[in-house]
Amino acid sequence: MKHFISPADVTDIAQLVKEAAQLKANPYAFSDLGKNKTIGLLFFNSSLRTRLSTQKAATNLGMNVIVMNVDSDGWQLEMNDGVIMDGNKAEHIKEAAAVIGQYCDIIGVRAFAKLNNRKKDYQEMVMEKFRTYAGVPIVNLESATRHPCQSLTDLLTIQELKTVERPKIVLTWAPHVKALPQAVANSFAEWVNLTDYDFTIANPEGYNLAPEFVGNAKVTHNQNEAFANADFIYAKNWSSYEHYGEVLPGNKDWQITPEKMALTNNAKFMHCLPVRRGLVVADEVLDSLASVVIQQAGNRVWAAQAAIKRVLEELG
Amino acid sequence: MKHFISPADVTDIAQLVKEAAQLKANPYAFSDLGKNKTIGLLFFNSSLRTRLSTQKAATNLGMNVIVMNVDSDGWQLEMNDGVIMDGNKAEHIKEAAAVIGQYCDIIGVRAFAKLNNRKKDYQEMVMEKFRTYAGVPIVNLESATRHPCQSLTDLLTIQELKTVERPKIVLTWAPHVKALPQAVANSFAEWVNLTDYDFTIANPEGYNLAPEFVGNAKVTHNQNEAFANADFIYAKNWSSYEHYGEVLPGNKDWQITPEKMALTNNAKFMHCLPVRRGLVVADEVLDSLASVVIQQAGNRVWAAQAAIKRVLEELG
Amino acid sequence: MKHFISPADVTDIAQLVKEAAQLKANPYAFSDLGKNKTIGLLFFNSSLRTRLSTQKAATNLGMNVIVMNVDSDGWQLEMNDGVIMDGNKAEHIKEAAAVIGQYCDIIGVRAFAKLNNRKKDYQEMVMEKFRTYAGVPIVNLESATRHPCQSLTDLLTIQELKTVERPKIVLTWAPHVKALPQAVANSFAEWVNLTDYDFTIANPEGYNLAPEFVGNAKVTHNQNEAFANADFIYAKNWSSYEHYGEVLPGNKDWQITPEKMALTNNAKFMHCLPVRRGLVVADEVLDSLASVVIQQAGNRVWAAQAAIKRVLEELG
Repeated sequence: MKHFISPADVTDIAQLVKEAAQLKANPYAFSDLGKNKTIGLLFFNSSLRTRLSTQKAATNLGMNVIVMNVDSDGWQLEMNDGVIMDGNKAEHIKEAAAVIGQYCDIIGVRAFAKLNNRKKDYQEMVMEKFRTYAGVPIVNLESATRHPCQSLTDLLTIQELKTVERPKIVLTWAPHVKALPQAVANSFAEWVNLTDYDFTIANPEGYNLAPEFVGNAKVTHNQNEAFANADFIYAKNWSSYEHYGEVLPGNKDWQITPEKMALTNNAKFMHCLPVRRGLVVADEVLDSLASVVIQQAGNRVWAAQAAIKRVLEELG
Repeated sequence: MKHFISPADVTDIAQLVKEAAQLKANPYAFSDLGKNKTIGLLFFNSSLRTRLSTQKAATNLGMNVIVMNVDSDGWQLEMNDGVIMDGNKAEHIKEAAAVIGQYCDIIGVRAFAKLNNRKKDYQEMVMEKFRTYAGVPIVNLESATRHPCQSLTDLLTIQELKTVERPKIVLTWAPHVKALPQAVANSFAEWVNLTDYDFTIANPEGYNLAPEFVGNAKVTHNQNEAFANADFIYAKNWSSYEHYGEVLPGNKDWQITPEKMALTNNAKFMHCLPVRRGLVVADEVLDSLASVVIQQAGNRVWAAQAAIKRVLEELG
Repeated sequence: MKHFISPADVTDIAQLVKEAAQLKANPYAFSDLGKNKTIGLLFFNSSLRTRLSTQKAATNLGMNVIVMNVDSDGWQLEMNDGVIMDGNKAEHIKEAAAVIGQYCDIIGVRAFAKLNNRKKDYQEMVMEKFRTYAGVPIVNLESATRHPCQSLTDLLTIQELKTVERPKIVLTWAPHVKALPQAVANSFAEWVNLTDYDFTIANPEGYNLAPEFVGNAKVTHNQNEAFANADFIYAKNWSSYEHYGEVLPGNKDWQITPEKMALTNNAKFMHCLPVRRGLVVADEVLDSLASVVIQQAGNRVWAAQAAIKRVLEELG
C-alpha cells in the first residue's frame, strides 16, 4: 500500500480488517518491521484518540515516532500556489512537505475541513499537497472529507460484534451546537458501501451527505423508521453539505435516546468520539451495555497498526 | 501497588524510599520491566520537573512514553455528571479516561486545584474520575490536594542528607504574589507525618493547612521560633485553606533570608521548585551551600521510577 | 567536543563536515553510542526542521529524546540576576538549567534574538546561562546570534555539490516583511570564513552584519555584481544590525529572481528555510533545478548527528 489516504489506496478491505484483528491478537508480531523507520504525525487540528492510538500503533511496529502540532510547534503554512507570501504564513506547504519527507519514512497528517468553501475542502488540498510533495507515504489521520483510520476501526468493531452475517447498520445524524466536518460520516459511508452490509443513512432534510459518499446507501429523513431492526446505530453529527458548513435550525429531537434504541434489534451503539452527552446522545444510552464506544476507540490502535504495517511492507 | 495517588496506596513508605535510592544507584536494573508497556502522561497544567523526570523514569524502566497537554493538544473535558454538554467542553472525562486506558498501561495525571471551590478541589474529582473510569493504574503527577511524587522525592532527599537519626524538619510558608495550591505542602506534611521525624509547620495566621494533612505536626505562627535548631527548612508558598484560595495581605517578612537560616542547626534549604527569587527566598540562601534544591529536583527521577516500578510489578 | 554552541567549540571543522557525510552514508553506525543517554530539546521559539532533524539525529545515535516547548509546556523563565521575581516569570534560568541538567545528558536550546536590545542579544545570555548552570553539554539549536547546526549543514551541502575546489559563494540579503534575527547569516559567514572558499556578502546599505561575523569576507551593496560568476547563492533575510532589529524601507528589488540567477555561474540556490515565496525568492527559482533547499534541509539530520556524536564521545 503506497499511501493510506482513502479506500482507493486499499485493494482488499476485508483482508485489511482481518489483519487488524490479527494485530489485536498479537500486537508485537511485527515489532521489527519498523526498525530504524520514523513516522512523523502532523496535527493541524486537535486530537486525542488519533494522537495516542497512532503513536501506540507505530511503536508496536518498532518505529520511531515524532509528533508535531504544526501551527503551534512550528508556524502556519501557505497552501495556495503563486501567492506573494507577505502575510502571516511563514512557509509554503511545498517546502514543508518535502522537508518533512526528508526526515520521516511515513507522514501522518490531520487537517480538518475549514467549512467555509466546499469546493476547496472537497479538493483535499492539504492531503494532496503532501501526497505530491512529501516523497514518502502519507497516512490520513482525518482529512477534510475522510477519516479512514476511523472507518477501518469501525469495520473491525462491527466484525467483532455482529451476530448475523449481514447486519443492518444505521448511520444517523445527531444534533450538535457547533459546525462539524462531514469527514467521519463520509468515510463511514464510503467504507460500509464497500461491504455487503445492509446500510441506511438517516439524517434531517438539508443534511444529505455528498452523493459520492452516499453511494448506494438507503437515505431516509425518518430516524425512527431507520432504527427499526437495526443491529448497529452509528451516531454522528455533521454540518450541512448542501448549505455548506451550516448548522440548520431545529432537529434537537434527533438525539439518540433509550426510546429510540428500543426500536432496534438490540442494536449496539457506536460513535467515533468525542461525543457530547445530553446533546448527541442521552447518558442512559452511552452508559448502557449497548454502547461499544470504548471498545471501538480501543480498536483505533489495531486499525492504525494494520494500515501502517501495510505501508511499511510496501516501503521494504 | 495498584495506583500511586496518595500515601494510602503505599503500604511501606520507608521501603519505597529505599527502593528509590537503589534505583538512583542502579538506574537500569529494571530496564526490561516496562517492555511493551506504555505510560501516558496527561498534563492539565504546566510542568517542567514532573514532565521531564517522569519521562526519564519511565524510559529507564523500558516503557514507551506518550505525553499529552490535554487542553491544547486535545480539548477541554467535562468533569461533571448529568450535564447537557452544549458549552465549550468537547468530551466527558468518563469517555476520555476510559479511552486513554485503552492505549496506556499506566496513566499519569497532573490536574491542579482551581482554588475557587474548596469542597470540589478537596474531592479530587479529576484524579478520582480517572481512578474510576480509566481501568488502568493512575499515577498522581500533582493533583488538587497532593503531590506524592514530590513528597517521595523529599523523603529520599532528607534521608540522603540527614546527619542525625531524627532530624527536625520545618515546613515553612513563604510569600508569593499569586494564589498557589496547597498540594505540595499538604503532601509533604502527610508523608513526613508517616515518618518519625520531628516535624513543625510554620505559617502565618490564616494559612493553616487542612487538619487532615496537618495531622500531629506542631503548628506555629512564629517562623523564627520554628527555625531554631531545624535540620531541614522546607519552604513553600500556599494560598489560604481557611479563606480558600486567597492571598491574605501582609506576611512579606516570611521570606527565607540568611538571617533566618542562621537560627537553624546549619539546616539544609529545600524547595520543590519553581521558586521565585527575592520573593520566596533570598538569592543568598538559594545560592548558598545550604541549598539542596537541585539535588532534590534530580531525585524526582528516582521517586517517580520507584513508584512506576511498583505499579508495573503489580500489573505483572 | 564539550559543547556545540559556536565554531569556537570545534577544533577541526573540515573533519566534522566529513563525519557528517559519513553519517549520511551510514546513519546507524553509532546507534549504541547514545544508549541510556537522554537529550532534552528546549524550544523557546518555534521550529520545524530543527525540531524534527535533531530528534531524528539523536534517535539514530540511540539516545532518548525529550522535547519541551519551554513557555507553553512550562512557564516563562527569568533571565536576569538579582531581581525580585514578582512578575510573570515563574522560575529563574539558574534553577531551570541546573534542574534540566539533572535529567538530560545533553541539552539542545533554541532561543532567538529578541531584536530590541543589540547588546543583550549579542551577549547570548540564554545560551551562556545554560552553559554556566546546566552542568552538561549544550547544543545550540539557534541562539540570538548563531545557528551552527545550520551552518554545518550548509558546509556539508556545499561540499556535496561544489564542482570546483574553491567555489564562489555569495550570501545575499533578500527582502522580508518581518524583522528577522541575524543568526543564520552571522553563522553562515562565520563558518564559511573558516574555509578557504571565495566568499562575498551582498546586502543593502544599512544591513551590514556585525564586523566579528563579516570577518574577511568581501562586502558589497551591489547584488548583481556579487552574483557574477557565483557558484552558490545563499539567500537570507535579516533585520538591520546597525539600526538594530529594524526593517529599513525599500530594497524589495533584492528578491532572488531568474534574471539574477542568470548572472551566476549556473549557481545552486540555497536557503535555510522557511522561505517566503514571491517575497524572498521567485517561485521560478525555488522550483528550478538550481534550487537545492530540500537536500540542504535533509542534511540537517547529519549535521546534528555529527555534532551530537562528538559531544557524546567526549561524555564517554
